[in-house]
Amino acid sequence: MSSEPSELSQQLESLYQVIFSRRDVRSQFLPDAVPDEVLSRLLYASHHAPSVGYMQPWNFLVIKSDEVKQHMHAAFTEANDEAKAMFKGERRELYSSLKLAGILESPVNICITCDRSRTGQTVLGRTHQSDMDLYSTVCAVQNFWLAARAENIGVGWVSIVKQEQLRETLGIPEEIIPIAYLCVGYVSEFNDQPDLEKAGWSKRLPLNDLVFYDQWGQQSEGESLAEQIKKDQHFPDRIVEE
Amino acid sequence: MSSEPSELSQQLESLYQVIFSRRDVRSQFLPDAVPDEVLSRLLYASHHAPSVGYMQPWNFLVIKSDEVKQHMHAAFTEANDEAKAMFKGERRELYSSLKLAGILESPVNICITCDRSRTGQTVLGRTHQSDMDLYSTVCAVQNFWLAARAENIGVGWVSIVKQEQLRETLGIPEEIIPIAYLCVGYVSEFNDQPDLEKAGWSKRLPLNDLVFYDQWGQQSEGESLAEQIKKDQHFPDRIVEE
Repeated sequence: MSSEPSELSQQLESLYQVIFSRRDVRSQFLPDAVPDEVLSRLLYASHHAPSVGYMQPWNFLVIKSDEVKQHMHAAFTEANDEAKAMFKGERRELYSSLKLAGILESPVNICITCDRSRTGQTVLGRTHQSDMDLYSTVCAVQNFWLAARAENIGVGWVSIVKQEQLRETLGIPEEIIPIAYLCVGYVSEFNDQPDLEKAGWSKRLPLNDLVFYDQWGQQSEGESLAEQIKKDQHFPDRIVEE
Repeated sequence: MSSEPSELSQQLESLYQVIFSRRDVRSQFLPDAVPDEVLSRLLYASHHAPSVGYMQPWNFLVIKSDEVKQHMHAAFTEANDEAKAMFKGERRELYSSLKLAGILESPVNICITCDRSRTGQTVLGRTHQSDMDLYSTVCAVQNFWLAARAENIGVGWVSIVKQEQLRETLGIPEEIIPIAYLCVGYVSEFNDQPDLEKAGWSKRLPLNDLVFYDQWGQQSEGESLAEQIKKDQHFPDRIVEE
């Protein structure tokens, strides 16, 4: 056991713990209500994401209505049957065994959307990369997710749903882009690994395989950063165990 | 001064401080090298972002070469002249006064990309929302950014560059999507407000204007969460001041 993590400041260690222990939660939701004080903090965290041209293109739909959740669950179930059919044999069997959404079990659902015309047609920083406003909204999702983890609240991102059905269920107009539909609530536990890793769906890739130097594809054997990355391979696990 | 923030756990307060004091840095970079140990931690934080179907579609290009940075700076300058021309009158004048990238001043640049075919054609969770892999990569960007802030390192996202020039400069193949080009380095200070707010380009929107309940556009006056959000309007400032 290296002594390295203990050399980090308290703030650093806290942040890395949150990042490494965050999970996409589908199965462990408890029915306990999320207090307004907590939801309010999570929404402020999300609202303080970076945004291109400071456009803050997001909206937050807070969903507690059983009727709306039932509709969303039905839409998920329909899409999930379609998605399942795209896998074959053992893979389909494994897919079928996975629980992929906690829409009904989580006490609150949050849909985060992007209003592309919030500040007009021309946006500082969006001219040459037109999806920057969508990306800004994703940053808001990730802020929400990390703040939730620190509050001991689980979040699951439901992407298995047809956009038209999501729009119809929530009354989202044509010009608004739904980015994320999140299931939010306290949990019985946070798994020590991502669900898909635990289930044997896939494995975490070695970080060094993903890092290039100065040019695409260039992986220098003698690169000191590569050596450090190799040395740190157990850093995330150590931080979580602390 | 409310006593509320001090009731939060140390971990919570740390996380909110990081989120509320993160900035898009363009002007305050110091030339000091970022040690490998720090870069390694930032890359692990990024690599532990959520990803659709656990596909981990990201790569990290770590750029320290002066030549590559000079090329990127030239590409930025060209695009920035085009972008500036889209604004008129006072707005163009204000735009011209803004510093929008620190490519040369920051000791390291990082380009984070998305490999859409990393795990094959069919990806769990991407069938009905085809951009989920791009969004996963943005989550990796935001993890990097927050971890950097906690390490007292500034990050600036350069989106004012033509994608073809970025690809050419970094040798990025057709099938790989560049998501973010980041300038990374220690800073003389983190501004207390976003640059664009400080410069009078735009203001932070009131959070309550952005929150709807159960249906798009529905803002309930008597909603207890709306009351709480109003009560918490100075929460981000209080947390940062602590």
